[in-house]
Amino acid sequence: MQELEERILKDGIVKPGNVLKVDAFLNHQCDVELFDHMGAAWAEHFRDAGINKILTIEASGIGIACVAARHFGNIPVVFAKKAQSINLDGDQYVSTVFSFTKQREFPVIVSRKYLSAEDRVLILDDFLANGKALQGLIDICDHAGATVAGIGIAIEKGFQGGGDALREAGYDLDSLAIVDAMDPVDGSISFRK
Amino acid sequence: MQELEERILKDGIVKPGNVLKVDAFLNHQCDVELFDHMGAAWAEHFRDAGINKILTIEASGIGIACVAARHFGNIPVVFAKKAQSINLDGDQYVSTVFSFTKQREFPVIVSRKYLSAEDRVLILDDFLANGKALQGLIDICDHAGATVAGIGIAIEKGFQGGGDALREAGYDLDSLAIVDAMDPVDGSISFRK
Repeated sequence: MQELEERILKDGIVKPGNVLKVDAFLNHQCDVELFDHMGAAWAEHFRDAGINKILTIEASGIGIACVAARHFGNIPVVFAKKAQSINLDGDQYVSTVFSFTKQREFPVIVSRKYLSAEDRVLILDDFLANGKALQGLIDICDHAGATVAGIGIAIEKGFQGGGDALREAGYDLDSLAIVDAMDPVDGSISFRK
Repeated sequence: MQELEERILKDGIVKPGNVLKVDAFLNHQCDVELFDHMGAAWAEHFRDAGINKILTIEASGIGIACVAARHFGNIPVVFAKKAQSINLDGDQYVSTVFSFTKQREFPVIVSRKYLSAEDRVLILDDFLANGKALQGLIDICDHAGATVAGIGIAIEKGFQGGGDALREAGYDLDSLAIVDAMDPVDGSISFRK
């Protein structure tokens, strides 16, 4: 998606340790018009996938998913939680993943009420690197018997391999920008064609 | 807002300990069409407030804020973070608040880049009970020299007093549903007129 690639080049900052900071528009300050265009792009890609629910994970995925849902006929968005809360009941699907950005393990929790074998799910998230968080969401869909009908990602760090592993496993993965190389010294970023 | 009150009566569950579970449509599964109508209601209430930025806090506020932003001309949404992350730089506004639902203290963090004295801010969140989380966001606006031009809340638990304290302090607070009493035994919920 050209608009997203241009925005990454304009406002993204490459940091040591494979970190691409896009907090100016994606995961701290949010450009909701860009989110809307991202949603339109995913709706076009997945138009024949029969999607009836969007699944994402707190926190950065939520805004993207809620704005994108409009392009899928305002279907429900479910966001997985990363911690237990008194707002969650006992009856849950739970998986465990390791966060690259937080450098620790955390649970991925979805109430059983909101995911079932009837669901054809589009998983959405802001970033895909090694794919650990996504795998947690896929595990939860598998536990529920739901179909992962597609995966939409804003920015895939292609050089970390998680996206290609998911494609090889047969998932329909639509990453709107795939970064194949980035350099914290000169700040350069190159995208997959 | 009649639609929200009716939805709370239909799908909200009163639990012991002043807990109102609305995870069916507000803070786990999200009804984005309802969010859109909530955004329209706030846009009507705050139409003359000169708002140029929306501030919320992860996680449940993000979807509501991003959908609402469309009704304010797609102005930027900034969501405060509750934990440090390698995605955050050193230069931050930080406040500390106590979470009723998580039963612990956490920091409220916003990068200085995304809030300034030029901003007229609408603070949005899903719930207002004692007002601790909101106070953290107000503190951060004060640190930045930004103007809190309004506060929009989906569900205020009126009997916990946080909302009335903010009104007495002079804030323009627009809560779309104010619960004045609820009973975990018979499940009844009554709203402020």
